[in-house]
Amino acid sequence: MTSTAIVGQVLDANRRFYEALERLDMDAMDACWADDDAVGCVHPGGPWLRGRDAVMAGWEAIMANTGYMELEVADVEVAVDDPVARVTCVERITARAGEGASATAEVAATNLFVLGAMGWRIVLHHASPVVRGMAEAES
Amino acid sequence: MTSTAIVGQVLDANRRFYEALERLDMDAMDACWADDDAVGCVHPGGPWLRGRDAVMAGWEAIMANTGYMELEVADVEVAVDDPVARVTCVERITARAGEGASATAEVAATNLFVLGAMGWRIVLHHASPVVRGMAEAES
Repeated sequence: MTSTAIVGQVLDANRRFYEALERLDMDAMDACWADDDAVGCVHPGGPWLRGRDAVMAGWEAIMANTGYMELEVADVEVAVDDPVARVTCVERITARAGEGASATAEVAATNLFVLGAMGWRIVLHHASPVVRGMAEAES
Repeated sequence: MTSTAIVGQVLDANRRFYEALERLDMDAMDACWADDDAVGCVHPGGPWLRGRDAVMAGWEAIMANTGYMELEVADVEVAVDDPVARVTCVERITARAGEGASATAEVAATNLFVLGAMGWRIVLHHASPVVRGMAEAES
């Protein structure tokens, strides 16, 4: 397979992950993740969630507490070292918790995918808040 | 090589990375990173720094602005998918900027290493603040 085709597969997997999140679709989110207990996840400001059960409980909590979510994924870069692909990107998230007001946040994300029998599955998601003042100072 | 030996090599590479940071040793930090422009780095609260020049400029800025740094690395986990290894850990950082007061912060970190001709070199460092209230709510 050409490297262009591989990058296309990885971008598809990354898109499915964000579609699952935006649609608050827990089954689709579950299907994105590797069936492996070495998976790990950090949500913005949160601690390490490790193992499949903790990672899925984290997504369930986010989805249960989100009334509405709109996601714009920007600045996507892919690097492949077969069988691992890393995607780095920026998430612009507009979310509303329950009936509250909506807020937009910018998040830097790392998504790590491993190619297995079921295709590219995510093994690590690390998301962190981008603080405005710092972003301007450093970039 | 046994997987135990591989994990040992990765842990050594991870230790060298944190020693370089704690010693504010820019040459040692440079030697930890892959000679590859697909490297990327996020410091706590910061945006994506991409490419070798931007990543090294980020470390130089941190080292120049830090009078003293003490690092405790805890909760280290390693997963290897040859030739890629991911290390996830918690950094407890006590730092003093210039002549100011010191402060301690807890940081969740992902360090991604790729095995090349020069051994295990880091290609991605993603570090994010762990906010106390959130950590307790989620864990």
